[in-house]
Amino acid sequence: MLDSIVHRDPGERILLGPGPSNVDPRVLRAMAAPVLGHLDPEFLEIMTETMELLRFVFQTRNQLTLPMSGTGSSGMETALVNMLEPGDDAVICIHGLFGERLADAAKRCGANVTVVSAPWGSPIDPDDVKKALSSHRAIKLLAVVHAETSTGVLQPLQEISSLAREYNTLLVVDTVTSLGGIPVKVDERGLDVVFSGTQKCLSCPPGLAPITLSERAVRVLRERKTKVQSWYLDLSMIQQYWGKERFYHHTAPINMIYALHEALLIIKEEGLEQRFDRHARNSAALTAGLEAMGLKMLVEQPQYRLPSLHSVVIPDGVADLDVRRRLLSEYSIEIGGGLGNLKGQIWRIGLMGTSSTKKHVIMLLSALENILVSLNAPVTRGQALKACEEAYSASLDL
Amino acid sequence: MLDSIVHRDPGERILLGPGPSNVDPRVLRAMAAPVLGHLDPEFLEIMTETMELLRFVFQTRNQLTLPMSGTGSSGMETALVNMLEPGDDAVICIHGLFGERLADAAKRCGANVTVVSAPWGSPIDPDDVKKALSSHRAIKLLAVVHAETSTGVLQPLQEISSLAREYNTLLVVDTVTSLGGIPVKVDERGLDVVFSGTQKCLSCPPGLAPITLSERAVRVLRERKTKVQSWYLDLSMIQQYWGKERFYHHTAPINMIYALHEALLIIKEEGLEQRFDRHARNSAALTAGLEAMGLKMLVEQPQYRLPSLHSVVIPDGVADLDVRRRLLSEYSIEIGGGLGNLKGQIWRIGLMGTSSTKKHVIMLLSALENILVSLNAPVTRGQALKACEEAYSASLDL
Repeated sequence: MLDSIVHRDPGERILLGPGPSNVDPRVLRAMAAPVLGHLDPEFLEIMTETMELLRFVFQTRNQLTLPMSGTGSSGMETALVNMLEPGDDAVICIHGLFGERLADAAKRCGANVTVVSAPWGSPIDPDDVKKALSSHRAIKLLAVVHAETSTGVLQPLQEISSLAREYNTLLVVDTVTSLGGIPVKVDERGLDVVFSGTQKCLSCPPGLAPITLSERAVRVLRERKTKVQSWYLDLSMIQQYWGKERFYHHTAPINMIYALHEALLIIKEEGLEQRFDRHARNSAALTAGLEAMGLKMLVEQPQYRLPSLHSVVIPDGVADLDVRRRLLSEYSIEIGGGLGNLKGQIWRIGLMGTSSTKKHVIMLLSALENILVSLNAPVTRGQALKACEEAYSASLDL
Repeated sequence: MLDSIVHRDPGERILLGPGPSNVDPRVLRAMAAPVLGHLDPEFLEIMTETMELLRFVFQTRNQLTLPMSGTGSSGMETALVNMLEPGDDAVICIHGLFGERLADAAKRCGANVTVVSAPWGSPIDPDDVKKALSSHRAIKLLAVVHAETSTGVLQPLQEISSLAREYNTLLVVDTVTSLGGIPVKVDERGLDVVFSGTQKCLSCPPGLAPITLSERAVRVLRERKTKVQSWYLDLSMIQQYWGKERFYHHTAPINMIYALHEALLIIKEEGLEQRFDRHARNSAALTAGLEAMGLKMLVEQPQYRLPSLHSVVIPDGVADLDVRRRLLSEYSIEIGGGLGNLKGQIWRIGLMGTSSTKKHVIMLLSALENILVSLNAPVTRGQALKACEEAYSASLDL
C-alpha cells in the first residue's frame, strides 16, 4: 500500500547541492493557500504584484517580465524559441553543460550556431566572442551562461554586453544560478533576454522560470516572420494573459505563483544588496574552510567563482558517491556531484538563498571533514573551522 | 507595501468553472512538505509511485507514463512535438477551442494538417474521420479531444480508435477535462498518446501534465529521423530521468509532484468506478435542476454531455459578466464564461473531482436562481431543487 506524503513526511534536508535550495516555511505556507481561479480578480492582482517583484530582483523596468509555467530549462527554451527563426545565425558560448544545452536548443530552432568555448571551469574570453561576432555575417543572437551550474564559474557580462550592442546582436543570458544571489542588473548591463529558475537563489520550490525581455527583444518578437515553434512557450500569446488583456492562454500554476510571490517578498524584505553580501560572505567562509582542509577549487581564479555554487575537486582515491551518500544519510545534507565531463571529478556545493547561512557552512565543513578523515582521505584536520571563522571576521571588517 | 499571501489569504472559493477545481486540504498539506532534491532517493521513490498511480487513473500498463513539468497545454505540445516531424501528415479533429489549438500546435511542428470539424457543441462524426484517413496518403497521426472544455462535449472514442488502427495511424487524445472523472481506458480503447492536466478531475493544483504513450508511440519516438523540436519537452530524454537511468534532464517540480501523488492516492482510495459514478450522479442532478429552471444546455443530446463540464446557454437579455461577478462576490462561487465563438453565449459549470458534490450542486442552483430571478431573467422559479432531488433519487435506484 502506498503511503501518503503527509504521513511519511520525507524529512527536512539541508539542501547544499546545485538546487533546489531550502525554502522558507513562509513560502510553503503561501503555496498551500486555497486555489483561486486563473482569472479570479484576487489572483490577477497577485500576478501583477509578482511581475513587479520580479522586476525588482532582475533590476529592470522591462514591461515583459513574468514567470513561465515550467522549470528553469523552460526559461531557456522560451528565450530561444521566441527570438530565433529558422536560418537565423546565433553565437552560443559554451563553458559547461548549460552552454551545451543552449546550443542544442538553438539548433532545434533551426538556427545556424557558431560556438565560442572555454574549458569547463574557466569563463568565456570576450575576445573570442568578438572574433565570432566580427568574422561572420550579421549575428542575430548571442547567448551566454552567467552562472554555470555545472562548473561554478561566474561569467563577467560587461564586455560581452558591450560587444552585443556594438554588433547589434540580441544578448540572451542564463541566470538560473545567479538571480537573487548575485547582481544581475538587467537594465544597467543592457541584457536583452534573461531567464532564471525559482529553486536556486530565489529559494522557492522548482516549477517556474522567471524571464524578462528588453524593448529590443520585444520588437524582435513582434516582427517575427514565422510563428514561435512552441505553442506553450509563445510569449506573443502569454504576454496577453499577463498583460492588461488578461487573454486566456493556459491555466497558470496558481499555487506555484503564490510560492514565488512569497519568496520574492522575502527577498524584498531582506534587501538585494544585503542578500548579495550574505551570499558573498558565506561563500568566502566556505571556500576558506575547504581550502584549509587542503581541498582544491575547480575554478582557479577567485574572481570567477560563484558565491552561490562551489565546485570542489574530489581528492584522489575518494569515491564521490560514498561521501555524498554519507552526508545525506548521516547528516541530512545534500551536495551535488559533477555533470557531464566532470562526473566523479568534482562536488558541487551550493549556498543559495535560504540555504546560504553560517550554520550551514559550519555544518557542512564539519561533516565533510569527519567523513573524509574517516576515509583516510589526504585532508588537513582541524583547520577548516578556524579558517572559516577568520574569513567571517575579515568580511565584517569590510 | 505588498501583502503576503499568508496574511491576506485570498479566501476559499467554490470552484465550479472549467478548472481549476477545488483541492482536498490533504493535497495542500502534501504540497507543503519540505523540499527534497530531485535525485534524493526518497524523491525517486515518490516519482516511481506517482507513475504507478498515473497508470491506474489512465487505466493503462504503458511504461512511459509520467507527469510533464508544465500545465495541461504542455501535455498537448509534448504529444505533438514528440510524434510529429516536419512534413508528416496529420488529421486534427476540431469541435471546439482545444481542437483548434491541437491544429495550431501541429502546424508549428511542420506537419501538413487536414482538419475534420464539427459544430461547437456537437461531437466529431467518425464517418468524417474515415473520409479524411482514406482520401489522403498515409496519415501519421490523428488527434481528437475527448472532453472539449470549450463546449462541454464528450467525444465517443471507440469508432475513432478503430479507424486509427485500421489506417495504422497514431491516435492522440486530449483528456484534460476527462481524466479522473470519466473512464479514459487507454489500453482497452487502444489510445496511443493521451495527455491531461492536474487541475480538473484530478483535483490537484495546476502545474503538471500527465501523459502516457503506447508501445507503438514509443517506437515512433525511438525511430524519429530528426530531434524533437522542443528540448524541454523531449520525451526521449525525459524518460531517462523518470526511468531507471535517473539521468538528469531538468529539476522536477518537487512539491507539485507531492501534490499530484496525494491527489492520485485520494482517487485510489475512492475507487475509479465510484468516482465516475459520483461525477455522473452530480452531473445528472445539476442538469435536471438547470433544465427545470428553464435553462437550455448547449449540447443537445444527453449522451454527448460531459459529466465534468456543463455548457448552459445564457438566457436572452442576461449579461454574462453580471451573473458571474455576483456569483463570485455574493456566494464565492466561480463558474466560467464561453471561449472563442461562444464568448458571452454560454456559461461553463464544472463539477470536477473534489468540486463534484451534492452540496455544490445545490448551492449553485440556488445561487444562480436567486440571481437570475433578481435580474428578471426568463426562468422558472422554485422547480430546480425539486428536479435535482428527483434526479438524485433516480440515480440511487440504478
